[in-house]
Amino acid sequence: MSLPCSPQTCQHRVSKLVSSLLFGFALSTCAMSVSAALSVEPMSWWTGMQQTQLQLLITGDNIRDTQVKLIKAQGVTLSSINKTDSNDHLFVNLDLSQATPQQLTLGLFKDDQLLEQFDYALQARKKGSRDRQGFSNKDVIYLITPDRFANGNPDNDNHPDMLEQANRGFDGGRHGGDIMGIRKALPYLHDLGVTQLWINPLLENNQQKYSYHGYSTTNFYKIDPRFGSNQEYQALVEEAQTFGIGIIQDVVVNHMGSGHQWITSMPSSTWINDQSRWLKDPTDVSYSSHRRTTVQDPYAVSADISDFSDGWFDVTMPDLNQRDPHMATYLIQNSIWWVEYAGLSGIREDTYSYADKHFLSNWSKAIMNEYPHFNIVGEEWTANPVTVSYWQTGKQNTDGYQSFVPSMMDFPVYEALISSLTDKEQWESGFIKLYQMLANDLVYSNPSNLVLFEGNHDTNRIYSLMNNDIELYKIAMAYVLTSNRIPQIFYGSEILMQSPTGERNDGAVRADFPGGWPQDSVNVFSHQGLNADQKQALNFMRTLLNYRKTSQAIQQGDLHHFVPKDGIYVQSRHFGDETLLIVYNKNEQAVELDLSRFTEVFNGNTQGIDIINKQAQALNQPLKLAQKGVTILALSH
Amino acid sequence: MSLPCSPQTCQHRVSKLVSSLLFGFALSTCAMSVSAALSVEPMSWWTGMQQTQLQLLITGDNIRDTQVKLIKAQGVTLSSINKTDSNDHLFVNLDLSQATPQQLTLGLFKDDQLLEQFDYALQARKKGSRDRQGFSNKDVIYLITPDRFANGNPDNDNHPDMLEQANRGFDGGRHGGDIMGIRKALPYLHDLGVTQLWINPLLENNQQKYSYHGYSTTNFYKIDPRFGSNQEYQALVEEAQTFGIGIIQDVVVNHMGSGHQWITSMPSSTWINDQSRWLKDPTDVSYSSHRRTTVQDPYAVSADISDFSDGWFDVTMPDLNQRDPHMATYLIQNSIWWVEYAGLSGIREDTYSYADKHFLSNWSKAIMNEYPHFNIVGEEWTANPVTVSYWQTGKQNTDGYQSFVPSMMDFPVYEALISSLTDKEQWESGFIKLYQMLANDLVYSNPSNLVLFEGNHDTNRIYSLMNNDIELYKIAMAYVLTSNRIPQIFYGSEILMQSPTGERNDGAVRADFPGGWPQDSVNVFSHQGLNADQKQALNFMRTLLNYRKTSQAIQQGDLHHFVPKDGIYVQSRHFGDETLLIVYNKNEQAVELDLSRFTEVFNGNTQGIDIINKQAQALNQPLKLAQKGVTILALSH
Repeated sequence: MSLPCSPQTCQHRVSKLVSSLLFGFALSTCAMSVSAALSVEPMSWWTGMQQTQLQLLITGDNIRDTQVKLIKAQGVTLSSINKTDSNDHLFVNLDLSQATPQQLTLGLFKDDQLLEQFDYALQARKKGSRDRQGFSNKDVIYLITPDRFANGNPDNDNHPDMLEQANRGFDGGRHGGDIMGIRKALPYLHDLGVTQLWINPLLENNQQKYSYHGYSTTNFYKIDPRFGSNQEYQALVEEAQTFGIGIIQDVVVNHMGSGHQWITSMPSSTWINDQSRWLKDPTDVSYSSHRRTTVQDPYAVSADISDFSDGWFDVTMPDLNQRDPHMATYLIQNSIWWVEYAGLSGIREDTYSYADKHFLSNWSKAIMNEYPHFNIVGEEWTANPVTVSYWQTGKQNTDGYQSFVPSMMDFPVYEALISSLTDKEQWESGFIKLYQMLANDLVYSNPSNLVLFEGNHDTNRIYSLMNNDIELYKIAMAYVLTSNRIPQIFYGSEILMQSPTGERNDGAVRADFPGGWPQDSVNVFSHQGLNADQKQALNFMRTLLNYRKTSQAIQQGDLHHFVPKDGIYVQSRHFGDETLLIVYNKNEQAVELDLSRFTEVFNGNTQGIDIINKQAQALNQPLKLAQKGVTILALSH
Repeated sequence: MSLPCSPQTCQHRVSKLVSSLLFGFALSTCAMSVSAALSVEPMSWWTGMQQTQLQLLITGDNIRDTQVKLIKAQGVTLSSINKTDSNDHLFVNLDLSQATPQQLTLGLFKDDQLLEQFDYALQARKKGSRDRQGFSNKDVIYLITPDRFANGNPDNDNHPDMLEQANRGFDGGRHGGDIMGIRKALPYLHDLGVTQLWINPLLENNQQKYSYHGYSTTNFYKIDPRFGSNQEYQALVEEAQTFGIGIIQDVVVNHMGSGHQWITSMPSSTWINDQSRWLKDPTDVSYSSHRRTTVQDPYAVSADISDFSDGWFDVTMPDLNQRDPHMATYLIQNSIWWVEYAGLSGIREDTYSYADKHFLSNWSKAIMNEYPHFNIVGEEWTANPVTVSYWQTGKQNTDGYQSFVPSMMDFPVYEALISSLTDKEQWESGFIKLYQMLANDLVYSNPSNLVLFEGNHDTNRIYSLMNNDIELYKIAMAYVLTSNRIPQIFYGSEILMQSPTGERNDGAVRADFPGGWPQDSVNVFSHQGLNADQKQALNFMRTLLNYRKTSQAIQQGDLHHFVPKDGIYVQSRHFGDETLLIVYNKNEQAVELDLSRFTEVFNGNTQGIDIINKQAQALNQPLKLAQKGVTILALSH
């Protein structure tokens, strides 16, 4: 123990700060008696939030025995201090209901003597922060795996504090893609017609290997330095906004990475599921049963629910215990912090149902309470719409469970779309599966707020799933992009990136985007080296994405569809004066389609223009379909 | 035209009555000017019903031009007379709100001169009629195909007015089974433990061929004379009640038989869908698309809905147009008439979704309004619980559609049950499919009111579907009979009746019940000629059915189930002091099951007794399972 000091005398001392505390508040230590490394999370906060209670997690060696007091504060009160069984953590609860923007000063005391003090920033919110518009049916979301998209700054490919080094030769290694690469791609993405970017997690993943995917968070408040910095992330969001593009953060509340510093000292004994077992033996963990129905099943036993929710995804992904109330608040605040700090337009929540369901309700409620027009999309990977629908806000569940997540990923329609296009047309297979799956929309509280995708980082590549058939590819893309859904595409789909189609093949699916690296022979950004099919696909996508930017029929129109017959599935979208007739045709041979069956959705129109090739079509004449593919007719009188 | 007469002078004349008017009112004609054959439907009615408006459909040649008046009536008023474009029909609406039981006299007049008069009976209801208890979770329903169950009266195998003759040698012909056969089987059924009989339709089916199944009604108010008479049906219900057995009528509102007398003169031009086309050419009909999702699909076009709802099942089954308000009332009154006349405890509604959905809402509402504790089960043949759930009362449908049908057939769990027992145990196949299907119960307003079955007249035989494996058969039966459902079994399943298992094979599925015909070498009723497996099955069924008669755990207990593992699926039922642990085991080899995983549902009990073989089992000891099969343990301290 060194000597205590007064607040006045120790202001000049600078902490041997932990590397994670890079910004957001100034820290000055008065003595090293508590800790050489003191950290506070969240790193900063804001005044004027709906939730006026703030939980600070203060970490420092043997901090448990200290008293925390507010030394300098206006309109802020210290509501309570919660101690757990950890010696090195304190949870300090502040009441900000009367707070104005300011720099707080907090002190750690022992026997009424100040051991250490530090500042904490309460910032003013950006104008309009609360009223931000989340991603919506107006948007097209483009998913980027940041390590694999574009290497804008080769200087950050490696970092001295980070364990894994770049190795572009290994498909499970880090390839050097980063935030700067995404920034440089913004003109391309804008031209393509993209309006939202969902970026796989950017937070620090300081794991030994396979850290590129980002789902093993080792610091919840810090961008991985191999992707950039928190400030660079802020700058990306700001620059993207100038292109009319919003940023959706990929959030993981179910688990963290085993390389998190918490492993050396847990904030509580219930921070992680199976914590004590794991700490004794890092290989002794229970994996999730992956039986996702258990958490909705009216007849499930608690042991089975626990086997699903509390089990781990992987030995490198400790499963967070969201039933620990401090952990729950930590995660909720962390999500809100990133929305507010970075200026997000949405959250994509990973492995949605695997977290504690009551926590998920509180988490989504808290976020939507701060940002009423925001959007969150959860990942529930099942082909069963009953299971997916349970999690959407507004759903009247028979068990009374309430969610506040506006959107969910539409895995059921995605899976039906893939099989409908590759299965033979028969009484119960082919397009009819897709037609019937869409009819299940009655199970959702708000089906049009679901995100429908053609692929993501976990699925095989759409062009390959379509057997490298560009016409089937176009059908799939048009279905996603003209549906009554929020569409999401995966980087590289626009230029027919390929993958194996059997089991998962993450490395191939998440291949480098051509042109993202200086030495690339093919460069999508400059349109160099693309083959004819790739050019055709890119043109198709650019045309369709830009068309839908101003199409009220697609963005908010009525949807109608006709029972598929003879390999042809017809949908219509309609709003005001705008009517689209969309014909999906799987016939290999030329066919003529009598359009009279579809009169009901013509809305009095007599002709149509193909929005891709601009050819005119009289509606009282058969539509001549030379080969399989999609025809999108904008109708007129 | 013959001379008119006064009411006083023509009372003695007796009508040349149409053969369909056998009872319920006395008819006297005053003149033949209207018709030699006058009929009135319903054939009688009751006072004290909730619905006090009664629609009489009066049929007679050129009746359109007559006036109908009440000649003798107390507290009954003639509200209105509706004419259609038929010359031969009138719809007369009576207000019975102030009526007491009586014989009404109505007259047909022309130019104020009485042409004809007839009596109409308004009867008193049986005591407790309104409060009758419908079939419920306390029951086991036994489905009988009456032509194929037992020939109690060989004298009625043929009837002079009926077109098709008996031919037991043809599996699509009439075999002679009848109501008397069912009556004679009541002691057997009671001993077996059956408490409800669902009998395939008994109404007249005067068709040229394939009339045995009963789904081509040619007279909505008359039992087919080859099955018996209306009075015999009444007597069956009364006698069954003495055995504690209720009768569920198989009702068809979607279609009728092409041999119905209406074919000669339709009550309106909109009585049948596609009526005018069909009347011109009896082969020119549109068949149903069978695309059942259309009527729930938020995006379906009206043409597709019509293709499903208005299309015919078969050229011999004219599709009734329930949007014709007179037809709607006719069908509603007909269903209520049979409940009241015969004393039914339930209705099974055939091809449920094929009828107009708004009519179905009104139909079910009207019946449940008359009999608040009644039960109706609809047939919606799909493996999709979303589709089935739409039709159950209490379901909050997003489109606002309301049904009043308390129950639906549980095809989704039935199909999952069959596949779960025959598919290999793998990550996503075998018992897990059944476990996950049951988890979909959250989609239903009241899953425990669904009827779960092991087979019916349209499915292949359960024993055959189980590959003639009696242990798999027992698993299937136990699952149905201990579920939180209303169980329904099919005649003959208890003695392992077989069928092919490929495509439909109605003739084989609906084979004659052994012992139902005098010359049968095997006789189930006298237990003669059964092989060892049949005796074993019969004993198993009798034990289980009778056990569940007093088991509150099965009838109304909580259900819990455990994620299937290693080919074993465990459920529990619990109510008050009673706990059942049910172990379904698909392992071919002997296994020992550690019961400690199931402690959560032991409710403090320490041992169990196998309810079939009475063997004791300590719960802290492994359960030794010598072979696949079901073990039902009643737990105790």
